[in-house]
Amino acid sequence: MCDTCGCSHRPESLVQIGLPGPILARNDAAAARNRERFLRAGVLAVNVLGTPGAGKTALLEATLDALGRDVRAAVVVADLATDNDARRLRRQDVPVLGLETGTTCHLAATFLEPALARLPLDDLDLLFIENVGNLVCPALFDLGEAAKVALVSVTEGTDKPEKYPVMFQHTSAFVVSKTDLLPYVEFDTAEAGRLARRLNPAIEVIPLSAKTGEGMEGWLRWIEARRRTS
Amino acid sequence: MCDTCGCSHRPESLVQIGLPGPILARNDAAAARNRERFLRAGVLAVNVLGTPGAGKTALLEATLDALGRDVRAAVVVADLATDNDARRLRRQDVPVLGLETGTTCHLAATFLEPALARLPLDDLDLLFIENVGNLVCPALFDLGEAAKVALVSVTEGTDKPEKYPVMFQHTSAFVVSKTDLLPYVEFDTAEAGRLARRLNPAIEVIPLSAKTGEGMEGWLRWIEARRRTS
Repeated sequence: MCDTCGCSHRPESLVQIGLPGPILARNDAAAARNRERFLRAGVLAVNVLGTPGAGKTALLEATLDALGRDVRAAVVVADLATDNDARRLRRQDVPVLGLETGTTCHLAATFLEPALARLPLDDLDLLFIENVGNLVCPALFDLGEAAKVALVSVTEGTDKPEKYPVMFQHTSAFVVSKTDLLPYVEFDTAEAGRLARRLNPAIEVIPLSAKTGEGMEGWLRWIEARRRTS
Repeated sequence: MCDTCGCSHRPESLVQIGLPGPILARNDAAAARNRERFLRAGVLAVNVLGTPGAGKTALLEATLDALGRDVRAAVVVADLATDNDARRLRRQDVPVLGLETGTTCHLAATFLEPALARLPLDDLDLLFIENVGNLVCPALFDLGEAAKVALVSVTEGTDKPEKYPVMFQHTSAFVVSKTDLLPYVEFDTAEAGRLARRLNPAIEVIPLSAKTGEGMEGWLRWIEARRRTS
């Protein structure tokens, strides 16, 4: 059991990704360096969080398709044990870097920092960081990003913001994904939004379906507004 | 940051649930005491794990309905911040104990141990322990249960066992939930089962819909078989 995250680290997984040593102070120092690096390069970094299977990769696929060559984007994608998502995203003709975290339940700024050195940051406008699928732990680790986005799909239940408050306290946007499934499930988008705003009045609620494209324009507008203000 | 689980604990949440002190050795000692307590009482304890929104509570509601008064059941239900699930289950006329874990991303045996003292274990046949919604961390914490069950819904993608291997290495049954949504999503139940069995050849794959009742008989048979052999 390592001293970074008692719940799920195997020490060897930390060695694989070059991370010895402890916890949040170290994380925050690395996050500050990452943030400075993003600012210097003029890159908007967006940390994409959510439950396993909420559709993070599908959203990024649809986003990269929509942005086309107008925006120079790249993706860092974290996964416990596979490069499935990285392989999906590599079809999009943008730089994609897969990070296997072993049993580690979140990305940390200290994991991300050495990965950034392998990306052409100065030639990018936008970096998506797809986090490990987990609605608890990743919320607490600042990566140096400009914004956090949390995905919850309509199949997961209206009360998720209330049940996972830390995530929604830390995110700028709440993407309600898979709205194409709304006819088949009980999900109240307005109420879910209300619960999220109760925790975080500034949070933007963006319902969409990456599959049908419904609502994607709201998400693309959100990215564009962030790019203009970053 | 506490010394139990660096990723997500606020010390005050540990105080709330009466848990000072460190990590897995302490957890395993408490798990051994819980296991001994379950054996002495003749209670089958089942640890129910899965993603947020996979339908853990809905499965338990349907299960308690189906078991009726033939089996003396109770539920311990963990949640970060609400008693929503505990309130749903309390409608079932069985003892239900809600544990709020704060920002802690999993149940530990040390959390469970004091809770067990508040349940009439000697008058029970079956105890369901609904864990925090998280497909990573809870798998590593033995609670003293007889069996772990992992839920993944068909909306979450076929490759989940491969992407969250630790969970499937530690579970006796893999419940593929929300099969009523199969017509509307791309999910290959046979392939998901194959991926889970590659990690854990003994795992039982049980597709079901708690909403329509389809497949519930397989789940109830699994419980009954466990009860006979425990």
